[in-house]
Amino acid sequence: MKELKLGLLGLGTVGGGVLTLLARNGEAIARRAGRPVRVVAAAVRDVSKPRPGAEGVHLSEDIDAVIDHPDVDVVLELMGGTDAARDAVERALRAGKPVVTANKALIALHGQALFDLASEAGTTLSYEAAVAGGIPLIKALREGLAANRVHSIAGIINGTCNYILTEMSQTGAAFEDVLAEAQRLGYAEADPTFDVGGIDAAHKLTILASIAFGIPLSFDKVTTDGIGSVTAEDLAYARELGYRIKPLAIARRQEQGVELRVHPTLVPEKDLLANVNGVLNAVVVRADAASPTGYFGPGAGAEATASAVLADVVDLARRSTGTDMPALGQATDASDALAPLAIDEAVCAHYLRLRVADTPGVLKSISGVLAEHAISIEAIVQKELQTPGGTTTVIILTQPVPERVAVAACEQMAALPAISDSIHRIRVEHFDD
Amino acid sequence: MKELKLGLLGLGTVGGGVLTLLARNGEAIARRAGRPVRVVAAAVRDVSKPRPGAEGVHLSEDIDAVIDHPDVDVVLELMGGTDAARDAVERALRAGKPVVTANKALIALHGQALFDLASEAGTTLSYEAAVAGGIPLIKALREGLAANRVHSIAGIINGTCNYILTEMSQTGAAFEDVLAEAQRLGYAEADPTFDVGGIDAAHKLTILASIAFGIPLSFDKVTTDGIGSVTAEDLAYARELGYRIKPLAIARRQEQGVELRVHPTLVPEKDLLANVNGVLNAVVVRADAASPTGYFGPGAGAEATASAVLADVVDLARRSTGTDMPALGQATDASDALAPLAIDEAVCAHYLRLRVADTPGVLKSISGVLAEHAISIEAIVQKELQTPGGTTTVIILTQPVPERVAVAACEQMAALPAISDSIHRIRVEHFDD
Repeated sequence: MKELKLGLLGLGTVGGGVLTLLARNGEAIARRAGRPVRVVAAAVRDVSKPRPGAEGVHLSEDIDAVIDHPDVDVVLELMGGTDAARDAVERALRAGKPVVTANKALIALHGQALFDLASEAGTTLSYEAAVAGGIPLIKALREGLAANRVHSIAGIINGTCNYILTEMSQTGAAFEDVLAEAQRLGYAEADPTFDVGGIDAAHKLTILASIAFGIPLSFDKVTTDGIGSVTAEDLAYARELGYRIKPLAIARRQEQGVELRVHPTLVPEKDLLANVNGVLNAVVVRADAASPTGYFGPGAGAEATASAVLADVVDLARRSTGTDMPALGQATDASDALAPLAIDEAVCAHYLRLRVADTPGVLKSISGVLAEHAISIEAIVQKELQTPGGTTTVIILTQPVPERVAVAACEQMAALPAISDSIHRIRVEHFDD
Repeated sequence: MKELKLGLLGLGTVGGGVLTLLARNGEAIARRAGRPVRVVAAAVRDVSKPRPGAEGVHLSEDIDAVIDHPDVDVVLELMGGTDAARDAVERALRAGKPVVTANKALIALHGQALFDLASEAGTTLSYEAAVAGGIPLIKALREGLAANRVHSIAGIINGTCNYILTEMSQTGAAFEDVLAEAQRLGYAEADPTFDVGGIDAAHKLTILASIAFGIPLSFDKVTTDGIGSVTAEDLAYARELGYRIKPLAIARRQEQGVELRVHPTLVPEKDLLANVNGVLNAVVVRADAASPTGYFGPGAGAEATASAVLADVVDLARRSTGTDMPALGQATDASDALAPLAIDEAVCAHYLRLRVADTPGVLKSISGVLAEHAISIEAIVQKELQTPGGTTTVIILTQPVPERVAVAACEQMAALPAISDSIHRIRVEHFDD
């Protein structure tokens, strides 16, 4: 099948991520897209700068030359800003080339004109990466919930703000100090106004509300309060009252219209949004049929954003060939062939509950068996509580081991004279994010 | 644009949900699908039974008659079971009609042959509703994460098991008692084996793993432990050690293959999956680019499942016309026109932090102002801590009121002689699920 050829406007963080993912996962992407996908040209500020990974990509300092390049089927606008980006997107759409963008400000401020232009030119403008980075949220809202009437959207869609409020809440530090630390760690820009002032979240909310409620893009109608006024004192009082303060963007249907607001918000501590910390994004959608549904994940980052950009590209590729995704279980290419594993080879930690005779040396013999199988102990609890017959309960948490090792050790322990009853085993998972 | 006409096999819970949603949200669905969608025929067990909402639908007790009905463009298999359902789906696919199904057992056990048949016949078999009900999880995994190499999937994909373990954990009750209660409430079937034995979750995991790893549908390779062996004692010990026990389905890539397992699992209490309670489903996907991403929502229910079925139908409608979704902000039909609201009209609760003179009667004058504006108080905290000048801090949580009411009350309070400093106000949201 004919290659789909991409022209990149900008080869910074996200553009680099697109090259990385195509290099690493190109075969799987081609299988899902129904055709190979390749970057053929990229517009950059300085062609003389060495760019590892961009070998074979035609580099140019002329944006128009990339857009007009006869080989370029799809234009990826990854330059940011709204002026030059708008000109470039308009030029590409007029040429009938589909555009994929990660630029939330461009869509929030100029989307209406650009979508009209795309429609006139018989092409499309895609923007999955513009909101919530690597979370396929736009797709969920546009397509997954297509049969629903949405009541509200509430989410944490600015990672910088969530990081700052999380740190302030957990350490008691002041806003200015945490902001400085976030800048040092690269979680906040040198000029943080867009993030901490709520403008970035307002751009994203503008886009989400337009999809969910069919209203025009209304950035200037969003009430936008930054997080700078939240004090360590407020975070402590909120906690005392059973709340957390989270940076929320909210769009809610009322009878007469839609509330649009971005502001720090007290949320009950049991609420899932109250438990989304650090730079993670999360959005909860309430609707009339499937409700609530929630989506969380990384809101930024080179590969997370490139993942969303390439999801749009794969959709375009399939739409252009009219093909469906590969069917379930369709064989992967040989280099990536995987088989279901027997449970013996599964690796996880284990919780063991044993009933043991309450005699000296019993713990020693149990730990001896575990040591013999090279199983490390994460925690061990012996309950005082005596059960009939002079037995007591011992709980052991192990480090991760292959299932067959855990099974063999349990069998050996069960044969110890001090162990009455069978050993009760439950698997333990630590997901390392 | 030409109507897309649906033939339903089965008009029970999910079929009824499809009729309800099309009746309620038909205009929005047509806008998103690019053409009107209508149920024209349905196969039922007893045509004489009264079926409100099915007026105008051709009812028949003959499944084949519905499949072969010349008006039926798309067949929705909503009968359940695997024998008759398989025959029906095969017949529809052979006739070249696209099929949408909510039947996880059918896909997990016979999917391979059915997808091959669909492919030969040049048509498609869609199954968004087969896993995690109303959560658009299949779409996220197939399309949203198309550029990713998936490392693992871990999720709560059986609401009955999650309800039972949540209740056991929170009340200390025994498995049998909570199961009986779940049966009484309709959260568990009369014969609960499929759910509590992990078979239902194994069907779903089979489907998810095939999409994520490109492996064949391998239901017989899934290690499946039910939740019946978990005791109240285990739940208490787990909690003591900082864990919760959740009913997880896990598929994880290793170098040699894929682990496939369904079992009760200890999860650290801070983990998001540990905090998904009751009948909610939730799935976390770890991958190389966008990671982790998580998805939660209702795993069952008439309208939630119908929402997923109709999302597949909307995708089919758009694929058949080759059209994109409506652009952002595209005007809704007049009956549903919404405008962005001014913040004055937004309704929420408020957190107020006031610095007040530590004199008798000050709380009375504050509550007097709130009463005057008909603002109810949810909580009030006066801190002992004295600040310079004999002032003290008062925190008030209000009940929800329109923003303009809160603003007016704050202005009036700020003018009280006892109030030094401005009033600090943060909005509070209680999401009522």
